[in-house]
Amino acid sequence: MDAHIKEQLIAITGSAHVRTTVAQKLAYSYDATANFQALPDLIISPASINEIQAIVKVCAEHNVPIISRGSGTNLAAGTTPTAGGVVLLFNRMNNILELDTENLTLTVQPGVITQEINEYVADAGLFYPPDPSSMSVSTIGGNVSENSGGLRGLKYGVTRDYVKALKIVLPNGELLTTGGKLAKDVAGYDLTSLFVGAEGTLGIVVEITLSLIPAPESKKTLLVSYDTLEKAALTVSSIIAAKIVPAALEFMDKGTIEAVEEFMKIGLPTNCEAMLLIEQDGDPAVVEKDMELVHKLCMEHGATSTQMAQSVEEAANLSVARRVALSALARKRPSTILEDATVPRSEIAKMVKAVQEIAQKYDLLICTFGHAGDGNLHPTILTDVRDEEEMARVEMAFAEIFHYAIQLGGTITGEHGVGEMKAPYLEWKIGKAGIDVMKRLKQAIDPFNIMNPNKIFAKSTKKRVVVHHG
Amino acid sequence: MDAHIKEQLIAITGSAHVRTTVAQKLAYSYDATANFQALPDLIISPASINEIQAIVKVCAEHNVPIISRGSGTNLAAGTTPTAGGVVLLFNRMNNILELDTENLTLTVQPGVITQEINEYVADAGLFYPPDPSSMSVSTIGGNVSENSGGLRGLKYGVTRDYVKALKIVLPNGELLTTGGKLAKDVAGYDLTSLFVGAEGTLGIVVEITLSLIPAPESKKTLLVSYDTLEKAALTVSSIIAAKIVPAALEFMDKGTIEAVEEFMKIGLPTNCEAMLLIEQDGDPAVVEKDMELVHKLCMEHGATSTQMAQSVEEAANLSVARRVALSALARKRPSTILEDATVPRSEIAKMVKAVQEIAQKYDLLICTFGHAGDGNLHPTILTDVRDEEEMARVEMAFAEIFHYAIQLGGTITGEHGVGEMKAPYLEWKIGKAGIDVMKRLKQAIDPFNIMNPNKIFAKSTKKRVVVHHG
Repeated sequence: MDAHIKEQLIAITGSAHVRTTVAQKLAYSYDATANFQALPDLIISPASINEIQAIVKVCAEHNVPIISRGSGTNLAAGTTPTAGGVVLLFNRMNNILELDTENLTLTVQPGVITQEINEYVADAGLFYPPDPSSMSVSTIGGNVSENSGGLRGLKYGVTRDYVKALKIVLPNGELLTTGGKLAKDVAGYDLTSLFVGAEGTLGIVVEITLSLIPAPESKKTLLVSYDTLEKAALTVSSIIAAKIVPAALEFMDKGTIEAVEEFMKIGLPTNCEAMLLIEQDGDPAVVEKDMELVHKLCMEHGATSTQMAQSVEEAANLSVARRVALSALARKRPSTILEDATVPRSEIAKMVKAVQEIAQKYDLLICTFGHAGDGNLHPTILTDVRDEEEMARVEMAFAEIFHYAIQLGGTITGEHGVGEMKAPYLEWKIGKAGIDVMKRLKQAIDPFNIMNPNKIFAKSTKKRVVVHHG
Repeated sequence: MDAHIKEQLIAITGSAHVRTTVAQKLAYSYDATANFQALPDLIISPASINEIQAIVKVCAEHNVPIISRGSGTNLAAGTTPTAGGVVLLFNRMNNILELDTENLTLTVQPGVITQEINEYVADAGLFYPPDPSSMSVSTIGGNVSENSGGLRGLKYGVTRDYVKALKIVLPNGELLTTGGKLAKDVAGYDLTSLFVGAEGTLGIVVEITLSLIPAPESKKTLLVSYDTLEKAALTVSSIIAAKIVPAALEFMDKGTIEAVEEFMKIGLPTNCEAMLLIEQDGDPAVVEKDMELVHKLCMEHGATSTQMAQSVEEAANLSVARRVALSALARKRPSTILEDATVPRSEIAKMVKAVQEIAQKYDLLICTFGHAGDGNLHPTILTDVRDEEEMARVEMAFAEIFHYAIQLGGTITGEHGVGEMKAPYLEWKIGKAGIDVMKRLKQAIDPFNIMNPNKIFAKSTKKRVVVHHG
């Protein structure tokens, strides 16, 4: 990076908030995605929207890429600075700005940790439902840019469903304000929804107004084991068929259960093939009724054991067991590559079975866990990115998983985003017409491609594999 | 229109499905919006997606505007063919294609009447919540293009919240497929949300997959009268503060109540200043508990009378009383212009009061009803579009209403759309940056502006009025 540009950027925030040493650049050269790494030119921490506008104007003038970054928990190389440029941090923009209890909204800066939002609004008897597994470290700005999901997606939806208004710094440095504290607003195109999940490729989200709901009065948590995957999948279908929409309906396979138990030692039964973690929340009487029926359905579909949490602590433990799945698996081998293939709920059994077949075919260790209720699975390959031969097999396995998920009416990513990692597969899901429309939108808003380049759009699309499962 | 183009279009559907007489053109020269009218060149009724693609290709080649039209209930001149061209009807594409009870989705053609969807899914114990007041005649295609709201918006959201997947014919004739039967999908930009509410300006929605939810088990309906507007507004705030989210929380002022009673003769108390219609649905015990508390809150805030429906029929009657408000008012004077200003829920009392002041100031008859729970009001001016002097006052009154709604953090349209009528006011809400981004999106997807031209974007923006209320 030209020294003159660097000086202009330092003049905006002061040198205390610009990092330029190699060690600092290395720290921001990767995110939570294995096998993607590149040094940025500089890391900057603005303190205000005005400063961000000034930074963007400098970058626009000199065609310097800008990569917005929260806590770097991205799993699709969405925040890796593979085109160099400026990594923009929100560590100085991490304030909760306003809780509006009349309109049930919360306005925050992008750097606030998601878990902090949960705790803050709980004190007012309110609830912000989206709960990505990374919520204890991830920022709300990152969640908004990725349209993060979580365990409660089935019943409560995902991040986009709770974003009411945004302030965005556009690639030309202008400030765009979208939406409002409104339940209804049809004043033109839905820009809010367009910028949510745009992975930082259209502009920089600099302020967020979220909608909240009254906190559910009670919650119950049930852990259920099965000796076959099919029985677990059939239970999931039967719960929905019974017109119950649980607050969480999570799945773990044998490999995941063993890794979690080894990690946490909380007495999970490791002699089963699959487990479901089922939660319901709401009015105490309704929760009681729903969970009784859920329990009955589990038994009817051949559950080998069930465990209803008897206390808030026990429930939290069971829930954490599922939330730590990735961390637990990550301990097993040098590299963990987490997938995010998502299928219609009705197709889960087929998908899980296909993943097992694919693991055998390519001689790989794949453990699967995820959100069974909404069809969002996380097949996780335990591997070693330094082993080129194995990585070639990993890539083929993932291509087959994506291909089959799409065949079942699914998608290549349910909640992690496209980033750079999945860009070569995007056309499989959305077709040539979809790629064409998305590229036009990108070109229209960011004509010089300075916002998080190399993400979402790949230089070339992977050749589609043709393999039959199921 | 050139005879050659006409022949090409007739060749696609057959002449039986093309209307070209003046009488036929007149029938499609206007929608439900007063004071906007223009003749199309031709009206066509395709029977398939392929036929629509062929029609679009002919129109694209010759730069002929295409106006998609459902039942023409639009209230913002959104379907008036003011640039001439082809009016495209869906009367031959009105089939329900698939009910998927495992994934809780319904796939339909755009010409299906919304009420029919409600009835169809009710038979399966399922529920499609969006309920625009026009639902007994409006089509789902129109609802999707306008992102229609309705009475249940507060608790259940609007049309966009239930659209899972779309098929869209793009301005170049290509078919775009977005989304899927998926609770989570982050494969690129959210094209589904972009096309929902785009008012037919970006492409033609040709197939829709909606998400459904389990039908609530029970419902209770309460009608409450007040001797001041403020007491009604305070009741609304107190219900939300008590952490209750009713299924409907509707408001009618004195003028509306009188018109409805005159029309329906169902014994509404006409000696009050305001009424609330409050509904809750869900588990019977929860509904009972919520409505008891709601009743208590109504009394605490000075309700002069309350009427809890004792039967399904009585509840339906009370609900219809609110739904027919527009029809009842429309009988009073030659022209009815319905507004759609929407404010944060906390600002409703201020907004209703300002509307009354504005009516006095311009010596106009304005009755207000609407969705108090979500801040979406419908101030309705009873007027005569042939009276130029009065219409000048009407226009000034609306400008003041928009201005003040925006001052309160609101919007110029909550659920009716921008169309041609509100296009000159759009910049007031979204600013120059917002107009610029929306124009870029339009240009990117529809570079020759053949999709519903003259809508959303105005040739010039109205000068902003500066008047203070409240």
